[in-house]
Amino acid sequence: MKEVKVSIFGFGTVGRALVEIVSENPEVVGVKIKVESITDRSGTVWGDFDPLEVKEVKENAGRISALGDYEVYSFKPKELIEEVKPDILVDVSSWDGAFSMYEVALKERVSVVTSNKPPIAEHYDKLRELAEESKAGVYFESTVMAGTPIIGLLRENLLGENIEEILAVLNASTTFILTRMESGKSFEEAFEEAKSLGVLEEDPSKDIDGIDAFYKAKILHWVAYGEPPEKTERVGIREVEDAKNVRLVARVSKGEISVKPRKLEENSPLLVSGVYNAAIIRTNNLGELVLKGKGGGGRVTASGVFTDIVKAALKFPSPR
Amino acid sequence: MKEVKVSIFGFGTVGRALVEIVSENPEVVGVKIKVESITDRSGTVWGDFDPLEVKEVKENAGRISALGDYEVYSFKPKELIEEVKPDILVDVSSWDGAFSMYEVALKERVSVVTSNKPPIAEHYDKLRELAEESKAGVYFESTVMAGTPIIGLLRENLLGENIEEILAVLNASTTFILTRMESGKSFEEAFEEAKSLGVLEEDPSKDIDGIDAFYKAKILHWVAYGEPPEKTERVGIREVEDAKNVRLVARVSKGEISVKPRKLEENSPLLVSGVYNAAIIRTNNLGELVLKGKGGGGRVTASGVFTDIVKAALKFPSPR
Repeated sequence: MKEVKVSIFGFGTVGRALVEIVSENPEVVGVKIKVESITDRSGTVWGDFDPLEVKEVKENAGRISALGDYEVYSFKPKELIEEVKPDILVDVSSWDGAFSMYEVALKERVSVVTSNKPPIAEHYDKLRELAEESKAGVYFESTVMAGTPIIGLLRENLLGENIEEILAVLNASTTFILTRMESGKSFEEAFEEAKSLGVLEEDPSKDIDGIDAFYKAKILHWVAYGEPPEKTERVGIREVEDAKNVRLVARVSKGEISVKPRKLEENSPLLVSGVYNAAIIRTNNLGELVLKGKGGGGRVTASGVFTDIVKAALKFPSPR
Repeated sequence: MKEVKVSIFGFGTVGRALVEIVSENPEVVGVKIKVESITDRSGTVWGDFDPLEVKEVKENAGRISALGDYEVYSFKPKELIEEVKPDILVDVSSWDGAFSMYEVALKERVSVVTSNKPPIAEHYDKLRELAEESKAGVYFESTVMAGTPIIGLLRENLLGENIEEILAVLNASTTFILTRMESGKSFEEAFEEAKSLGVLEEDPSKDIDGIDAFYKAKILHWVAYGEPPEKTERVGIREVEDAKNVRLVARVSKGEISVKPRKLEENSPLLVSGVYNAAIIRTNNLGELVLKGKGGGGRVTASGVFTDIVKAALKFPSPR
């Protein structure tokens, strides 16, 4: 049995779902996960505490600094790594600048597990290099399609394949708006409905203008080709008029990514609805592979993070 | 760069496609594969030879013992391991009794990669145990859905999930017959057509009576639950009268497997045709996950074997 100490950074929906899944799976395939610290914007709880209690306080009071029974520290991200010295840093925040924290972690031989897209999309080469030097690992299953394991599939399987093309629907908020438009609403009406239901990101442009899908496409390009794309294109859904069978589709091929609305054939596996994402992966030997699953939600995302923690604990190699 | 020596056991369609893929990928993710020996029913070629030349001789003369330029050995399987001393034994034969060879390999710390179903279906517990003792590994991606990575998905991902149910179409020959019946043929006519096109196994009962799909379901049960099923059911397609939307479906849940013809809904992802296989995996957090891809063919199967060789070379952990 192997015990690993994890620091959870960010304690929103995903972080809290992760704490649930960890407590439901005290030991999995010989790995025991000990939550050593939890950090939100208000501070860090560290040491001997009950993660489910911290979750409850967070849900009731909105911040973990409201915890009465435990000391709450005000670490800077760098101090968090150096003081707490976890085995694994788990970033389930949406902090754009988290790359600098991963750098510190990897240099200290702390593996990084993350569901946070920009740091991977922008700095994967640097992170791989640091991980290689320190024999730590970087795992990021839930950055694309949440816990539906497209990263594991591309990164650890298909090792003899040339990936010719990936076509994927990776953003459920635009699917929501487009399917509402299919049933007769205008873009504006559908947009307002999505907003009122909490379907959109805080900055709705990230969904509507394809920024979220673009980060994801970039990450897929990294794992498929080991390099960043040279040519990129990003068109959101604001200009869609006839939404019939249209989805916001990311296309990835060697050197190129594009995100734009595409009209799909009636029987296309990409014609998903609800929170489902789907990807078609075309390779030289396998032809067409389809993976479809939920692409968001607290437990769905936390599930991928959980698998990554176990992989980090078992020192899973990262071929790509 | 890490070089691994592999012994290929069996040199039919899959073995020959594997030799092609290896020669097209001389080095992948830091792993170089050296084909150290190739064995067919006629003998073993070992040492310094050109695998593509052996392939050509096999295709022209039907046996590798026809090779003029190289010595051909008559090793017993056990001697093969002890004499050649490969790093990895690659079984792409259809030898039912291969388990005894795997035992010898694992005891000698030789990892096993196989596309051969019965030894895994019948002896997975014993093989895992031996692998654990010797720190070698057992990899078997291509036993189910060929190179479409359902084994990698279940074995190395979804580690925090409870697998509630798997529903899958895992045998393309029965799909061929059933789709022919859907377009008006009788079972007998469709069966004869399949036979004449070479779609069926040498012993057609393995397809028609669900034996092939049953082995695969059993392997899925092993990787989903770590134990063999207690309750099993197997019904072939001989008695199907109305084939409309019917496929031979394997169902796997904790303690139970069944293989039988099922009428599917019009829009079911399991309603595949041609060589496609498909699986729906239901879990507690992810809901429904769909994986669809080709389930057979030389290169498709060899691709999964290739990935497994790389995993064995990198000492990939096997959580399940």
